[in-house]
Amino acid sequence: MIYLDNAATTPVHPDVLQALVPYFVKNYGNPSGIYDIARTNKEAIEKARKIIADSLNASPEEIYFTSGGTEADNWAITGIIQKNKNKKHIITSKIEHHAILNTCIHLEKLGYPVSYINVNQNGIVDIDELKNAIRPDTALISIMSANNETGVLQPVEEIGNIAKERGICFHTDAVQAYMHQQIDVKKSHIDMLSASAHKFNAPKGTGFLYIRNGIDLEPFMHGGKQEAGQRAGTENVAGIVGMGKAVEIANRNQKKDTVYVRNMRDYLLYLLENEFPGIKLNGDRHKRLPGNININFPMHIDSSLPVLLDMEGVCVSGGSACTTGNTTGSHVLLAMGLDKQKASSALRITIGPQNTMEEMDMTFDKIKKCISILSY
Amino acid sequence: MIYLDNAATTPVHPDVLQALVPYFVKNYGNPSGIYDIARTNKEAIEKARKIIADSLNASPEEIYFTSGGTEADNWAITGIIQKNKNKKHIITSKIEHHAILNTCIHLEKLGYPVSYINVNQNGIVDIDELKNAIRPDTALISIMSANNETGVLQPVEEIGNIAKERGICFHTDAVQAYMHQQIDVKKSHIDMLSASAHKFNAPKGTGFLYIRNGIDLEPFMHGGKQEAGQRAGTENVAGIVGMGKAVEIANRNQKKDTVYVRNMRDYLLYLLENEFPGIKLNGDRHKRLPGNININFPMHIDSSLPVLLDMEGVCVSGGSACTTGNTTGSHVLLAMGLDKQKASSALRITIGPQNTMEEMDMTFDKIKKCISILSY
Repeated sequence: MIYLDNAATTPVHPDVLQALVPYFVKNYGNPSGIYDIARTNKEAIEKARKIIADSLNASPEEIYFTSGGTEADNWAITGIIQKNKNKKHIITSKIEHHAILNTCIHLEKLGYPVSYINVNQNGIVDIDELKNAIRPDTALISIMSANNETGVLQPVEEIGNIAKERGICFHTDAVQAYMHQQIDVKKSHIDMLSASAHKFNAPKGTGFLYIRNGIDLEPFMHGGKQEAGQRAGTENVAGIVGMGKAVEIANRNQKKDTVYVRNMRDYLLYLLENEFPGIKLNGDRHKRLPGNININFPMHIDSSLPVLLDMEGVCVSGGSACTTGNTTGSHVLLAMGLDKQKASSALRITIGPQNTMEEMDMTFDKIKKCISILSY
Repeated sequence: MIYLDNAATTPVHPDVLQALVPYFVKNYGNPSGIYDIARTNKEAIEKARKIIADSLNASPEEIYFTSGGTEADNWAITGIIQKNKNKKHIITSKIEHHAILNTCIHLEKLGYPVSYINVNQNGIVDIDELKNAIRPDTALISIMSANNETGVLQPVEEIGNIAKERGICFHTDAVQAYMHQQIDVKKSHIDMLSASAHKFNAPKGTGFLYIRNGIDLEPFMHGGKQEAGQRAGTENVAGIVGMGKAVEIANRNQKKDTVYVRNMRDYLLYLLENEFPGIKLNGDRHKRLPGNININFPMHIDSSLPVLLDMEGVCVSGGSACTTGNTTGSHVLLAMGLDKQKASSALRITIGPQNTMEEMDMTFDKIKKCISILSY
């Protein structure tokens, strides 16, 4: 099996597994308890919080653990809206993950106006349109750091500056970007940032929301006093410890991994572009995550290519895993101007540091084989 | 170390650990993917859903996985309220977990009226008061199955009947009760039920909300199409698989474990009541979970007893783990009529099937020693 769907999820790193297993069986105390095995767990959580804060140039008390990226996104948006009685307007983009889009659509039904900013043909948010969309009652700008389908990097620092100048809260969904590129929340003037552990070799079911000190957010879950009273519920200790370990590992290897992953990506892309003249890489060629390929083949290929590749042992996807079954075409590719047919038949290949050059060669061969069957 | 705080959390069962580890490293696919290791995970989730549904006499499509009990409680209440534009009134009790109480307090601030029903001195909800509290605009009755501090069982079936007769949705927070006593959602006319995996030897960070078919609930998290579009976010596959395994194990052993745990509890309680005449067991002696002891000593003992016991290697608590640091006294014991001093100095001992009779003897000796120091 060749796994090339690392934007959907990643395998847990063996060192992460080793780090978290003791928190299931040995250190199982409730972190809110008063006894030794409870305090041990509280300390383990705080250690992970510190590692994560450092990775963003943030402070530990600005990191709030959640059940994942979706919760962090939902919380950021609804939490800020509930605290702004007079400001109801939200600015986001047309290419956000559905955790953002569907939360905004829900809020629209409740009477909150939302502006969905367009992107150019390279998949980059239109900054002028964003500036023009700002209103006196704009409470929040939420623009992702990197797109989950195309890997295209958004001008986060520029948007952060605009938001800061206008005194508007700026949230970025960094689920795809965090640990795959450097993020400095101070430098980029990011007020809130969402991340998900399972996108960087840690377990599913854990993530965090960075909330800059001074940002007033309504808690998303009410209950116990965990997470400074801002996010109730017994902490997923093993998940949090695993996430901390994964950040430690990814931080250590980031430069090396980025080069390695980009080399594999560029090699596979080179092979494909050579073999299939007219192939189209969707999204900016340079401003994108190192492991992402999102392509349309020149010949008519329907959406069954990923299925065929699965039968050959290659795991890829036709877009976001969260929208599998969607037949209307990718909202991201449609926003970039692709027609419905192209937007429904793109192939997303996302490479991780656990992949190898040999796998790129094998994948190329499998794709050639499947394309020849499909375009017969 | 003697761990007697099983109401706060439990160690993960070795068989549960064995069942879930493969979902970190081998079966790591995103369940929404189209390829083989994704489908394997989807099937594993559905297997767990079936096991859990069967344990409640429910259908699999009525089980929605969450990040734990707190999310399930928050979702049940806010989800039903959002769908009932004309019915805004909520009935709950004064002894609910803060996941319920603080959600209700939040909703009160937003204009939703809430009735908090009293309990009698045995800690049982006053049914007459509950009946009288029902209004034409009552949207929800939420009463816990068993209390987290006293283990006292509430008249769930009776309340279920009342709710059904009046056509009101009935939710029960069964975080403490589920897998520690038999629950039949059909027999008890339960419309929604919350549970948390880490209360029955499965991992922290996972739980579920049972939602009876036909109950219309606003999703708590918006985003991807997971959980039939009702709960977005990549599934915590390992946590869900572990929870399913733990239910399988607990189901198999429930009768035996109940007798075993109750025998240990009754033995330790007998020793304590014999040694300290005038000791007070808080909550109904018979209508309570088999492993729960909640006591006040006859002499003046301050809240440092659990701390002293920790130094002796015994893990117990002064109440709910979620309210550690609270010095105003347990809201549960206050509601039962205890004075502030007694409500601040109760000792909660909660026994699980992994405990032994020898531990009861040792715990008794340690308590005697600590009491003699404190009452010196």
